[in-house]
Amino acid sequence: MSFRLDKIAIVGVGLIGGSFALALKRAGAVGTVAGLGRTQASLAHAVELGVIDAAHEEPRAALEGAQLVLLAMPVGQTRAVLERLAPHVDAQAVVSDAGSTKSDVIAAARDVLGPRIARFVPAHPIAGAEASGAEAARPDLYRGRRTVVTPLAENPADAVALVRDAWRACGAEVHEMDAAEHDRVFAVVSHLPHLLAFALVCDVLGHDDAERLFDYAAGGFRDFTRIASSHPEMWRDICLANRERLGVELDRYMDVLGLFRGHLRSGDGRALAAAFAAAREARNAWLARIEGGAAQ
Amino acid sequence: MSFRLDKIAIVGVGLIGGSFALALKRAGAVGTVAGLGRTQASLAHAVELGVIDAAHEEPRAALEGAQLVLLAMPVGQTRAVLERLAPHVDAQAVVSDAGSTKSDVIAAARDVLGPRIARFVPAHPIAGAEASGAEAARPDLYRGRRTVVTPLAENPADAVALVRDAWRACGAEVHEMDAAEHDRVFAVVSHLPHLLAFALVCDVLGHDDAERLFDYAAGGFRDFTRIASSHPEMWRDICLANRERLGVELDRYMDVLGLFRGHLRSGDGRALAAAFAAAREARNAWLARIEGGAAQ
Repeated sequence: MSFRLDKIAIVGVGLIGGSFALALKRAGAVGTVAGLGRTQASLAHAVELGVIDAAHEEPRAALEGAQLVLLAMPVGQTRAVLERLAPHVDAQAVVSDAGSTKSDVIAAARDVLGPRIARFVPAHPIAGAEASGAEAARPDLYRGRRTVVTPLAENPADAVALVRDAWRACGAEVHEMDAAEHDRVFAVVSHLPHLLAFALVCDVLGHDDAERLFDYAAGGFRDFTRIASSHPEMWRDICLANRERLGVELDRYMDVLGLFRGHLRSGDGRALAAAFAAAREARNAWLARIEGGAAQ
Repeated sequence: MSFRLDKIAIVGVGLIGGSFALALKRAGAVGTVAGLGRTQASLAHAVELGVIDAAHEEPRAALEGAQLVLLAMPVGQTRAVLERLAPHVDAQAVVSDAGSTKSDVIAAARDVLGPRIARFVPAHPIAGAEASGAEAARPDLYRGRRTVVTPLAENPADAVALVRDAWRACGAEVHEMDAAEHDRVFAVVSHLPHLLAFALVCDVLGHDDAERLFDYAAGGFRDFTRIASSHPEMWRDICLANRERLGVELDRYMDVLGLFRGHLRSGDGRALAAAFAAAREARNAWLARIEGGAAQ
Protein backbone atom coordinates (compact mmCIF):
# COMPACT_ATOMS: atom_id res chain seq x y z
CA MET A 1 0.00 0.00 0.00
CA SER A 2 1.52 3.27 -1.00
CA PHE A 3 1.71 6.24 1.31
CA ARG A 4 -0.82 8.97 0.68
CA LEU A 5 -2.28 11.86 2.67
CA ASP A 6 -5.49 13.59 1.65
CA LYS A 7 -4.38 16.97 2.85
CA ILE A 8 -1.33 18.60 4.35
CA ALA A 9 -0.69 22.15 5.50
CA ILE A 10 2.64 23.93 5.04
CA VAL A 11 3.40 26.85 7.32
CA GLY A 12 6.02 29.00 5.61
CA VAL A 13 6.05 28.22 1.91
CA GLY A 14 9.68 28.86 1.04
CA LEU A 15 12.44 26.65 -0.31
CA ILE A 16 12.05 23.97 2.36
CA GLY A 17 8.27 23.85 2.74
CA GLY A 18 7.69 24.39 -0.98
CA SER A 19 10.06 21.59 -1.98
CA PHE A 20 8.36 19.24 0.50
CA ALA A 21 5.00 20.03 -1.12
CA LEU A 22 6.34 19.57 -4.66
CA ALA A 23 8.07 16.30 -3.76
CA LEU A 24 4.91 14.81 -2.23
CA LYS A 25 2.85 15.96 -5.19
CA ARG A 26 5.23 14.43 -7.67
CA ALA A 27 5.21 11.19 -5.68
CA GLY A 28 1.40 11.18 -5.76
CA ALA A 29 1.54 11.11 -1.97
CA VAL A 30 -0.75 14.03 -1.26
CA GLY A 31 -4.15 15.29 -2.31
CA THR A 32 -4.39 18.93 -1.33
CA VAL A 33 -1.61 21.19 -0.09
CA ALA A 34 -2.72 24.21 1.90
CA GLY A 35 -0.24 27.01 2.49
CA LEU A 36 -0.18 29.41 5.40
CA GLY A 37 2.24 32.31 5.61
CA ARG A 38 2.92 35.86 6.65
CA THR A 39 2.58 37.59 3.33
CA GLN A 40 -0.37 36.94 1.05
CA ALA A 41 1.53 38.10 -2.03
CA SER A 42 4.15 35.40 -1.70
CA LEU A 43 1.51 32.75 -0.91
CA ALA A 44 -0.47 33.77 -3.99
CA HIS A 45 2.74 33.46 -5.98
CA ALA A 46 3.29 29.95 -4.56
CA VAL A 47 -0.19 29.02 -5.78
CA GLU A 48 0.61 30.40 -9.24
CA LEU A 49 3.78 28.34 -9.30
CA GLY A 50 1.79 25.21 -8.43
CA VAL A 51 3.73 24.70 -5.22
CA ILE A 52 0.58 24.82 -3.07
CA ASP A 53 -3.09 24.45 -3.99
CA ALA A 54 -4.59 27.05 -1.71
CA ALA A 55 -3.30 30.08 0.17
CA HIS A 56 -4.75 30.84 3.56
CA GLU A 57 -4.55 33.84 5.81
CA GLU A 58 -6.25 32.13 8.72
CA PRO A 59 -5.18 28.84 10.27
CA ARG A 60 -8.67 27.37 10.66
CA ALA A 61 -9.33 26.75 6.98
CA ALA A 62 -5.72 25.82 6.28
CA LEU A 63 -5.62 23.15 8.96
CA GLU A 64 -9.12 21.74 8.56
CA GLY A 65 -8.78 18.11 7.59
CA ALA A 66 -4.98 18.29 7.32
CA GLN A 67 -3.39 15.02 8.46
CA LEU A 68 0.09 16.54 8.55
CA VAL A 69 1.11 20.10 9.38
CA LEU A 70 4.69 21.01 8.49
CA LEU A 71 6.27 24.03 10.17
CA ALA A 72 8.78 25.41 7.68
CA MET A 73 9.29 28.98 8.77
CA PRO A 74 12.45 30.20 10.60
CA VAL A 75 12.81 28.36 13.92
CA GLY A 76 12.56 31.53 15.99
CA GLN A 77 8.86 31.78 15.11
CA THR A 78 7.98 28.30 16.38
CA ARG A 79 6.35 29.38 19.62
CA ALA A 80 4.27 32.20 18.14
CA VAL A 81 3.17 30.10 15.19
CA LEU A 82 2.19 27.10 17.33
CA GLU A 83 0.20 29.34 19.66
CA ARG A 84 -1.78 30.56 16.69
CA LEU A 85 -2.25 27.12 15.14
CA ALA A 86 -2.87 24.92 18.18
CA PRO A 87 -6.61 25.61 18.59
CA HIS A 88 -7.22 24.54 14.98
CA VAL A 89 -5.12 21.40 14.64
CA ASP A 90 -7.16 18.19 14.30
CA ALA A 91 -6.71 15.88 17.28
CA GLN A 92 -5.35 13.08 15.09
CA ALA A 93 -3.18 15.30 12.89
CA VAL A 94 0.59 15.07 13.19
CA VAL A 95 2.56 18.29 13.45
CA SER A 96 6.18 18.22 12.36
CA ASP A 97 8.83 20.77 11.54
CA ALA A 98 11.83 21.19 9.29
CA GLY A 99 14.00 23.30 11.57
CA SER A 100 17.78 23.11 11.60
CA THR A 101 17.76 23.08 15.41
CA LYS A 102 15.73 20.73 17.50
CA SER A 103 16.06 21.35 21.26
CA ASP A 104 14.63 24.87 21.06
CA VAL A 105 11.79 23.84 18.74
CA ILE A 106 10.87 20.97 21.06
CA ALA A 107 10.96 23.23 24.13
CA ALA A 108 8.64 25.73 22.45
CA ALA A 109 6.30 22.97 21.27
CA ARG A 110 6.13 21.42 24.74
CA ASP A 111 5.24 24.76 26.29
CA VAL A 112 2.51 25.49 23.80
CA LEU A 113 1.07 22.02 23.18
CA GLY A 114 1.18 20.52 26.68
CA PRO A 115 -0.03 16.90 26.52
CA ARG A 116 -0.70 17.26 22.79
CA ILE A 117 3.10 17.17 22.33
CA ALA A 118 2.57 13.44 21.61
CA ARG A 119 1.43 14.40 18.09
CA PHE A 120 4.47 16.65 17.49
CA VAL A 121 7.29 14.80 15.71
CA PRO A 122 10.40 16.95 15.20
CA ALA A 123 12.47 16.51 12.05
CA HIS A 124 15.22 18.18 10.05
CA PRO A 125 15.80 17.61 6.34
CA ILE A 126 19.52 17.93 5.59
CA ALA A 127 19.11 19.77 2.36
CA GLY A 128 18.91 23.33 1.42
CA ALA A 129 20.51 25.90 -0.69
CA GLU A 130 21.47 29.50 -0.27
CA ALA A 131 18.49 30.30 -2.48
CA SER A 132 15.23 30.96 -0.68
CA GLY A 133 11.57 31.49 -1.38
CA ALA A 134 8.88 29.38 -3.05
CA GLU A 135 10.33 30.17 -6.48
CA ALA A 136 13.47 28.25 -5.45
CA ALA A 137 11.46 25.17 -4.43
CA ARG A 138 11.97 22.01 -6.45
CA PRO A 139 10.58 18.50 -6.20
CA ASP A 140 14.01 16.81 -6.12
CA LEU A 141 15.57 18.87 -3.32
CA TYR A 142 15.39 15.96 -0.87
CA ARG A 143 16.18 13.12 -3.25
CA GLY A 144 19.06 11.08 -1.86
CA ARG A 145 19.46 13.47 1.09
CA ARG A 146 19.02 12.65 4.73
CA THR A 147 16.19 13.70 6.96
CA VAL A 148 16.91 13.38 10.67
CA VAL A 149 13.85 12.65 12.79
CA THR A 150 14.29 13.24 16.53
CA PRO A 151 11.24 11.51 18.04
CA LEU A 152 10.03 12.34 21.52
CA ALA A 153 9.38 9.79 24.25
CA GLU A 154 5.69 10.75 24.02
CA ASN A 155 5.36 10.10 20.28
CA PRO A 156 3.27 7.04 19.39
CA ALA A 157 4.62 4.81 16.65
CA ASP A 158 1.96 5.87 14.11
CA ALA A 159 2.90 9.55 14.37
CA VAL A 160 6.60 8.86 13.88
CA ALA A 161 5.83 6.49 11.01
CA LEU A 162 3.75 9.13 9.25
CA VAL A 163 6.60 11.64 9.31
CA ARG A 164 9.15 9.03 8.25
CA ASP A 165 6.91 7.89 5.39
CA ALA A 166 6.33 11.43 4.19
CA TRP A 167 10.07 12.14 3.99
CA ARG A 168 10.72 8.81 2.31
CA ALA A 169 8.07 9.71 -0.26
CA CYS A 170 10.13 12.85 -0.93
CA GLY A 171 13.10 10.63 -1.73
CA ALA A 172 14.95 11.23 1.54
CA GLU A 173 16.84 8.68 3.61
CA VAL A 174 15.42 8.88 7.13
CA HIS A 175 17.68 8.73 10.21
CA GLU A 176 16.82 9.01 13.89
CA MET A 177 18.80 10.88 16.49
CA ASP A 178 18.42 12.35 19.95
CA ALA A 179 17.61 16.09 19.79
CA ALA A 180 20.59 17.23 21.90
CA GLU A 181 22.92 15.07 19.86
CA HIS A 182 21.40 16.48 16.68
CA ASP A 183 22.12 20.02 17.82
CA ARG A 184 25.71 19.18 18.70
CA VAL A 185 26.40 17.42 15.39
CA PHE A 186 24.91 20.21 13.29
CA ALA A 187 26.60 22.94 15.30
CA VAL A 188 29.88 21.47 14.01
CA VAL A 189 29.11 20.51 10.43
CA SER A 190 26.51 23.12 9.48
CA HIS A 191 25.95 26.04 11.85
CA LEU A 192 29.65 26.75 12.40
CA PRO A 193 30.57 26.79 8.68
CA HIS A 194 27.69 29.17 8.00
CA LEU A 195 28.90 31.53 10.73
CA LEU A 196 32.48 31.33 9.38
CA ALA A 197 31.38 32.06 5.82
CA PHE A 198 29.29 35.06 6.88
CA ALA A 199 32.29 36.23 8.93
CA LEU A 200 34.68 36.08 5.98
CA VAL A 201 32.46 38.27 3.81
CA CYS A 202 32.04 40.69 6.73
CA ASP A 203 35.82 40.70 7.14
CA VAL A 204 36.37 41.60 3.48
CA LEU A 205 33.66 44.28 3.76
CA GLY A 206 35.54 45.76 6.71
CA HIS A 207 38.53 46.61 4.51
CA ASP A 208 38.72 50.10 3.02
CA ASP A 209 39.21 48.66 -0.46
CA ALA A 210 36.61 45.90 -0.16
CA GLU A 211 35.43 46.35 -3.73
CA ARG A 212 38.95 45.87 -5.10
CA LEU A 213 39.43 42.80 -2.91
CA PHE A 214 36.21 41.26 -4.23
CA ASP A 215 37.50 41.98 -7.75
CA TYR A 216 40.29 39.46 -7.26
CA ALA A 217 38.30 36.83 -5.43
CA ALA A 218 37.98 33.64 -7.46
CA GLY A 219 36.46 30.18 -7.35
CA GLY A 220 37.85 29.20 -3.95
CA PHE A 221 36.32 32.28 -2.36
CA ARG A 222 33.03 31.75 -4.17
CA ASP A 223 32.61 28.19 -2.94
CA PHE A 224 33.82 28.98 0.58
CA THR A 225 31.30 31.79 0.88
CA ARG A 226 28.40 30.17 -0.99
CA ILE A 227 26.52 29.64 2.28
CA ALA A 228 27.01 33.32 3.14
CA SER A 229 24.26 33.96 0.58
CA SER A 230 21.87 32.08 2.90
CA HIS A 231 18.80 33.66 4.43
CA PRO A 232 19.88 36.06 7.21
CA GLU A 233 16.76 35.74 9.34
CA MET A 234 16.77 31.95 9.15
CA TRP A 235 20.43 31.83 10.19
CA ARG A 236 20.00 34.38 12.95
CA ASP A 237 17.32 32.12 14.41
CA ILE A 238 19.46 29.00 14.08
CA CYS A 239 22.45 30.69 15.69
CA LEU A 240 20.36 31.99 18.57
CA ALA A 241 18.49 28.72 19.03
CA ASN A 242 21.72 26.74 19.23
CA ARG A 243 23.89 29.47 20.65
CA GLU A 244 25.32 27.59 23.59
CA ARG A 245 26.50 24.62 21.59
CA LEU A 246 27.54 26.82 18.66
CA GLY A 247 29.51 29.02 21.03
CA VAL A 248 31.41 25.98 22.34
CA GLU A 249 32.17 24.86 18.79
CA LEU A 250 33.22 28.35 17.72
CA ASP A 251 35.64 28.42 20.64
CA ARG A 252 37.11 25.09 19.55
CA TYR A 253 37.50 26.38 16.01
CA MET A 254 39.17 29.56 17.23
CA ASP A 255 41.60 27.38 19.16
CA VAL A 256 42.60 25.70 15.90
CA LEU A 257 43.03 29.12 14.28
CA GLY A 258 45.14 30.14 17.27
CA LEU A 259 47.40 27.14 16.65
CA PHE A 260 47.70 28.05 12.97
CA ARG A 261 48.46 31.65 13.97
CA GLY A 262 51.31 30.35 16.10
CA HIS A 263 52.67 28.28 13.23
CA LEU A 264 52.66 31.37 10.99
CA ARG A 265 54.41 33.42 13.66
CA SER A 266 57.14 30.85 14.24
CA GLY A 267 57.35 29.87 10.57
CA ASP A 268 56.58 26.26 11.43
CA GLY A 269 56.06 24.86 7.96
CA ARG A 270 56.23 21.29 9.18
CA ALA A 271 53.23 21.77 11.48
CA LEU A 272 51.24 23.62 8.81
CA ALA A 273 51.93 20.97 6.18
CA ALA A 274 50.99 18.20 8.61
CA ALA A 275 47.69 19.89 9.44
CA PHE A 276 46.90 20.60 5.78
CA ALA A 277 47.74 17.03 4.77
CA ALA A 278 45.56 15.58 7.55
CA ALA A 279 42.69 17.84 6.48
CA ARG A 280 43.02 16.95 2.83
CA GLU A 281 43.20 13.25 3.55
CA ALA A 282 40.17 13.32 5.85
CA ARG A 283 38.11 15.37 3.41
CA ASN A 284 38.97 13.20 0.44
CA ALA A 285 38.21 10.03 2.42
CA TRP A 286 34.85 11.52 3.40
CA LEU A 287 34.04 12.42 -0.20
CA ALA A 288 35.02 8.98 -1.37
CA ARG A 289 32.66 7.53 1.26
CA ILE A 290 29.67 9.67 0.37
CA GLU A 291 30.13 9.80 -3.36
CA GLY A 292 32.33 6.88 -4.22
CA GLY A 293 34.34 9.35 -6.22
CA ALA A 294 37.25 11.75 -6.23
CA ALA A 295 37.55 15.10 -4.48
CA GLN A 296 35.22 17.82 -5.69
CA MET B 1 50.99 38.57 -36.38
CA SER B 2 50.03 35.91 -33.97
CA PHE B 3 52.04 35.11 -30.88
CA ARG B 4 54.21 32.00 -31.09
CA LEU B 5 57.23 30.66 -29.23
CA ASP B 6 59.43 27.93 -30.69
CA LYS B 7 60.17 26.38 -27.33
CA ILE B 8 59.20 26.82 -23.71
CA ALA B 9 60.31 25.00 -20.59
CA ILE B 10 58.00 24.21 -17.70
CA VAL B 11 59.53 23.56 -14.30
CA GLY B 12 57.05 21.55 -12.25
CA VAL B 13 54.55 19.91 -14.57
CA GLY B 14 51.46 19.80 -12.39
CA LEU B 15 48.01 21.36 -12.73
CA ILE B 16 49.30 24.90 -13.24
CA GLY B 17 52.33 24.26 -15.44
CA GLY B 18 50.60 21.48 -17.35
CA SER B 19 47.52 23.58 -18.09
CA PHE B 20 49.74 26.44 -19.31
CA ALA B 21 51.45 24.01 -21.72
CA LEU B 22 48.15 22.56 -22.95
CA ALA B 23 46.60 26.01 -23.43
CA LEU B 24 49.56 27.28 -25.50
CA LYS B 25 49.53 24.11 -27.57
CA ARG B 26 45.84 24.39 -28.27
CA ALA B 27 46.31 28.03 -29.25
CA GLY B 28 49.10 27.01 -31.63
CA ALA B 29 51.32 29.38 -29.68
CA VAL B 30 54.18 27.03 -28.95
CA GLY B 31 56.41 24.58 -30.81
CA THR B 32 58.08 22.36 -28.25
CA VAL B 33 57.30 22.10 -24.54
CA ALA B 34 60.11 20.75 -22.40
CA GLY B 35 59.32 19.61 -18.89
CA LEU B 36 61.67 19.57 -15.94
CA GLY B 37 60.71 18.11 -12.60
CA ARG B 38 61.70 16.23 -9.49
CA THR B 39 60.34 12.81 -10.34
CA GLN B 40 60.97 11.20 -13.68
CA ALA B 41 57.94 8.92 -13.37
CA SER B 42 55.51 11.83 -13.23
CA LEU B 43 57.32 13.65 -16.05
CA ALA B 44 57.14 10.51 -18.21
CA HIS B 45 53.44 10.36 -17.42
CA ALA B 46 53.05 14.01 -18.50
CA VAL B 47 54.67 13.10 -21.83
CA GLU B 48 52.27 10.16 -22.23
CA LEU B 49 49.35 12.49 -21.55
CA GLY B 50 50.61 14.87 -24.25
CA VAL B 51 51.02 17.69 -21.73
CA ILE B 52 54.74 18.11 -22.52
CA ASP B 53 56.81 16.91 -25.47
CA ALA B 54 59.98 15.95 -23.66
CA ALA B 55 60.92 15.12 -20.08
CA HIS B 56 64.29 16.23 -18.81
CA GLU B 57 66.27 15.36 -15.73
CA GLU B 58 68.92 18.00 -16.33
CA PRO B 59 68.26 21.68 -16.90
CA ARG B 60 70.76 22.16 -19.73
CA ALA B 61 68.83 20.24 -22.38
CA ALA B 62 65.46 21.41 -21.07
CA LEU B 63 66.39 25.10 -21.27
CA GLU B 64 68.41 25.03 -24.47
CA GLY B 65 66.68 27.27 -26.97
CA ALA B 66 63.71 27.92 -24.65
CA GLN B 67 62.41 31.49 -25.08
CA LEU B 68 60.24 31.26 -21.97
CA VAL B 69 60.87 29.33 -18.77
CA LEU B 70 57.86 29.00 -16.46
CA LEU B 71 58.45 28.14 -12.82
CA ALA B 72 55.37 26.20 -11.70
CA MET B 73 56.55 24.29 -8.66
CA PRO B 74 55.61 25.27 -5.06
CA VAL B 75 56.93 28.77 -4.29
CA GLY B 76 59.19 27.54 -1.47
CA GLN B 77 61.46 25.90 -4.04
CA THR B 78 62.05 29.09 -6.05
CA ARG B 79 65.55 29.83 -4.76
CA ALA B 80 66.89 26.29 -5.07
CA VAL B 81 65.36 25.80 -8.52
CA LEU B 82 66.67 29.12 -9.87
CA GLU B 83 70.16 28.34 -8.55
CA ARG B 84 70.13 25.13 -10.52
CA LEU B 85 68.66 26.67 -13.68
CA ALA B 86 70.46 30.02 -13.88
CA PRO B 87 73.67 28.79 -15.54
CA HIS B 88 71.63 27.27 -18.38
CA VAL B 89 69.07 29.96 -19.16
CA ASP B 90 69.60 31.68 -22.54
CA ALA B 91 70.54 35.34 -22.16
CA GLN B 92 67.49 36.49 -24.12
CA ALA B 93 65.05 34.01 -22.56
CA VAL B 94 62.36 35.31 -20.23
CA VAL B 95 61.84 33.52 -16.93
CA SER B 96 58.43 33.82 -15.29
CA ASP B 97 56.58 32.06 -12.53
CA ALA B 98 53.05 31.14 -11.56
CA GLY B 99 53.35 31.47 -7.80
CA SER B 100 50.50 32.55 -5.56
CA THR B 101 52.84 34.88 -3.66
CA LYS B 102 55.08 37.43 -5.29
CA SER B 103 57.31 39.30 -2.81
CA ASP B 104 59.13 36.16 -1.68
CA VAL B 105 59.56 34.83 -5.21
CA ILE B 106 60.97 38.18 -6.34
CA ALA B 107 63.36 38.36 -3.38
CA ALA B 108 64.66 34.86 -4.13
CA ALA B 109 65.00 35.66 -7.84
CA ARG B 110 66.90 38.88 -7.15
CA ASP B 111 69.35 37.07 -4.88
CA VAL B 112 70.04 34.32 -7.38
CA LEU B 113 69.87 36.21 -10.67
CA GLY B 114 71.60 39.48 -9.76
CA PRO B 115 71.50 41.83 -12.77
CA ARG B 116 69.77 39.15 -14.85
CA ILE B 117 66.64 39.88 -12.80
CA ALA B 118 65.66 42.12 -15.75
CA ARG B 119 64.56 38.99 -17.64
CA PHE B 120 62.49 37.68 -14.71
CA VAL B 121 58.83 38.73 -14.99
CA PRO B 122 56.71 37.56 -12.02
CA ALA B 123 53.12 36.49 -12.62
CA HIS B 124 50.23 34.72 -10.91
CA PRO B 125 47.39 33.06 -12.78
CA ILE B 126 44.21 33.30 -10.67
CA ALA B 127 43.00 29.84 -11.45
CA GLY B 128 43.43 26.53 -9.88
CA ALA B 129 41.57 23.70 -8.41
CA GLU B 130 41.98 21.47 -5.43
CA ALA B 131 43.06 18.77 -7.88
CA SER B 132 46.77 18.57 -8.58
CA GLY B 133 49.21 16.81 -10.87
CA ALA B 134 49.66 16.74 -14.64
CA GLU B 135 46.65 14.45 -15.00
CA ALA B 136 44.46 17.30 -13.71
CA ALA B 137 45.85 19.74 -16.31
CA ARG B 138 43.46 21.04 -18.94
CA PRO B 139 43.76 23.52 -21.77
CA ASP B 140 40.84 25.69 -20.65
CA LEU B 141 41.91 26.20 -17.02
CA TYR B 142 42.83 29.85 -17.65
CA ARG B 143 40.08 30.75 -20.10
CA GLY B 144 38.30 33.87 -18.87
CA ARG B 145 40.37 33.92 -15.68
CA ARG B 146 42.76 36.65 -14.62
CA THR B 147 46.51 36.48 -14.58
CA VAL B 148 48.18 39.15 -12.47
CA VAL B 149 51.60 40.21 -13.73
CA THR B 150 53.72 42.15 -11.21
CA PRO B 151 56.50 43.60 -13.39
CA LEU B 152 59.77 44.77 -11.86
CA ALA B 153 61.32 48.18 -12.45
CA GLU B 154 64.16 46.40 -14.24
CA ASN B 155 61.94 44.54 -16.73
CA PRO B 156 62.22 45.80 -20.33
CA ALA B 157 58.95 46.15 -22.23
CA ASP B 158 59.64 43.17 -24.50
CA ALA B 159 59.99 40.77 -21.56
CA VAL B 160 56.76 41.93 -19.94
CA ALA B 161 54.99 41.78 -23.30
CA LEU B 162 56.11 38.20 -23.87
CA VAL B 163 54.62 37.07 -20.55
CA ARG B 164 51.42 39.03 -21.10
CA ASP B 165 51.06 37.61 -24.61
CA ALA B 166 51.62 34.06 -23.43
CA TRP B 167 48.88 34.34 -20.81
CA ARG B 168 46.54 36.01 -23.27
CA ALA B 169 47.16 33.12 -25.64
CA CYS B 170 45.98 30.84 -22.80
CA GLY B 171 42.72 32.78 -22.75
CA ALA B 172 43.49 34.77 -19.59
CA GLU B 173 42.72 38.41 -18.91
CA VAL B 174 46.01 40.04 -17.90
CA HIS B 175 46.17 42.57 -15.05
CA GLU B 176 49.15 44.37 -13.57
CA MET B 177 49.72 45.03 -9.90
CA ASP B 178 52.52 45.90 -7.50
CA ALA B 179 53.94 42.79 -5.79
CA ALA B 180 53.29 43.92 -2.21
CA GLU B 181 49.74 44.92 -3.12
CA HIS B 182 49.28 41.55 -4.79
CA ASP B 183 50.32 39.73 -1.63
CA ARG B 184 47.96 41.80 0.51
CA VAL B 185 44.98 41.30 -1.79
CA PHE B 186 45.48 37.55 -2.07
CA ALA B 187 46.13 37.13 1.63
CA VAL B 188 42.51 38.26 2.11
CA VAL B 189 40.65 36.63 -0.76
CA SER B 190 42.65 33.44 -1.25
CA HIS B 191 45.25 32.52 1.37
CA LEU B 192 42.99 33.23 4.34
CA PRO B 193 40.02 31.19 3.06
CA HIS B 194 42.33 28.26 2.39
CA LEU B 195 43.68 28.43 5.93
CA LEU B 196 40.13 28.63 7.33
CA ALA B 197 38.95 25.65 5.30
CA PHE B 198 41.91 23.50 6.37
CA ALA B 199 41.20 24.59 9.96
CA LEU B 200 37.56 23.52 9.84
CA VAL B 201 38.43 20.01 8.69
CA CYS B 202 41.14 19.83 11.38
CA ASP B 203 38.57 21.01 13.92
CA VAL B 204 36.14 18.24 12.95
CA LEU B 205 38.99 15.72 13.04
CA GLY B 206 39.77 16.85 16.58
CA HIS B 207 36.38 15.61 17.82
CA ASP B 208 36.19 12.12 19.30
CA ASP B 209 33.34 11.23 16.97
CA ALA B 210 34.79 12.85 13.85
CA GLU B 211 33.57 10.06 11.59
CA ARG B 212 29.99 10.46 12.78
CA LEU B 213 30.21 14.24 12.32
CA PHE B 214 31.42 13.80 8.74
CA ASP B 215 28.48 11.45 8.19
CA TYR B 216 26.07 14.34 8.63
CA ALA B 217 28.03 16.95 6.73
CA ALA B 218 26.24 18.07 3.59
CA GLY B 219 26.58 20.37 0.62
CA GLY B 220 27.39 23.50 2.60
CA PHE B 221 30.26 21.76 4.34
CA ARG B 222 31.48 20.27 1.09
CA ASP B 223 31.68 23.60 -0.71
CA PHE B 224 33.12 25.44 2.29
CA THR B 225 35.91 22.86 2.60
CA ARG B 226 36.52 22.24 -1.11
CA ILE B 227 39.80 24.15 -0.93
CA ALA B 228 40.89 22.00 2.02
CA SER B 229 41.52 19.30 -0.57
CA SER B 230 44.27 21.52 -2.00
CA HIS B 231 47.90 20.51 -2.18
CA PRO B 232 49.40 20.63 1.36
CA GLU B 233 52.98 21.39 0.31
CA MET B 234 51.91 24.15 -2.06
CA TRP B 235 49.79 25.77 0.63
CA ARG B 236 52.44 25.40 3.32
CA ASP B 237 54.79 27.32 1.03
CA ILE B 238 52.20 30.02 0.29
CA CYS B 239 51.37 30.47 3.98
CA LEU B 240 55.04 30.69 4.93
CA ALA B 241 55.92 32.99 2.03
CA ASN B 242 53.12 35.41 2.92
CA ARG B 243 53.03 34.72 6.63
CA GLU B 244 53.33 38.29 7.86
CA ARG B 245 50.47 39.61 5.78
CA LEU B 246 48.44 36.45 6.26
CA GLY B 247 48.97 36.71 10.00
CA VAL B 248 47.60 40.25 9.99
CA GLU B 249 44.57 39.15 7.98
CA LEU B 250 43.99 36.13 10.21
CA ASP B 251 43.99 38.44 13.23
CA ARG B 252 41.39 40.66 11.55
CA TYR B 253 39.23 37.64 10.78
CA MET B 254 39.51 36.38 14.35
CA ASP B 255 38.36 39.80 15.51
CA VAL B 256 35.18 39.35 13.45
CA LEU B 257 34.71 35.89 14.97
CA GLY B 258 35.23 37.44 18.40
CA LEU B 259 32.41 39.89 17.65
CA PHE B 260 30.14 37.05 16.52
CA ARG B 261 31.08 35.11 19.67
CA GLY B 262 29.95 38.10 21.72
CA HIS B 263 26.64 38.27 19.85
CA LEU B 264 26.03 34.56 20.58
CA ARG B 265 26.88 35.06 24.26
CA SER B 266 24.54 38.02 24.66
CA GLY B 267 21.88 36.59 22.34
CA ASP B 268 22.09 39.66 20.13
CA GLY B 269 19.99 38.49 17.20
CA ARG B 270 19.74 41.98 15.77
CA ALA B 271 23.53 42.27 15.39
CA LEU B 272 23.82 38.75 13.94
CA ALA B 273 21.04 39.34 11.42
CA ALA B 274 22.55 42.69 10.39
CA ALA B 275 25.96 41.08 9.81
CA PHE B 276 24.47 38.15 7.90
CA ALA B 277 22.34 40.45 5.75
CA ALA B 278 25.32 42.68 4.94
CA ALA B 279 27.39 39.63 4.00
CA ARG B 280 24.67 38.17 1.81
CA GLU B 281 24.06 41.45 0.05
CA ALA B 282 27.76 42.04 -0.60
CA ARG B 283 28.31 38.52 -1.86
CA ASN B 284 25.30 38.58 -4.14
CA ALA B 285 26.32 41.98 -5.52
CA TRP B 286 29.81 40.62 -6.20
CA LEU B 287 28.41 37.55 -7.96
CA ALA B 288 26.12 39.71 -10.04
CA ARG B 289 29.14 41.80 -11.03
CA ILE B 290 31.36 38.90 -12.04
CA GLU B 291 28.75 36.66 -13.55
CA GLY B 292 25.88 38.90 -14.43
CA GLY B 293 23.71 36.33 -12.71
CA ALA B 294 22.10 35.24 -9.49
CA ALA B 295 23.74 33.81 -6.39
CA GLN B 296 25.39 30.45 -6.79
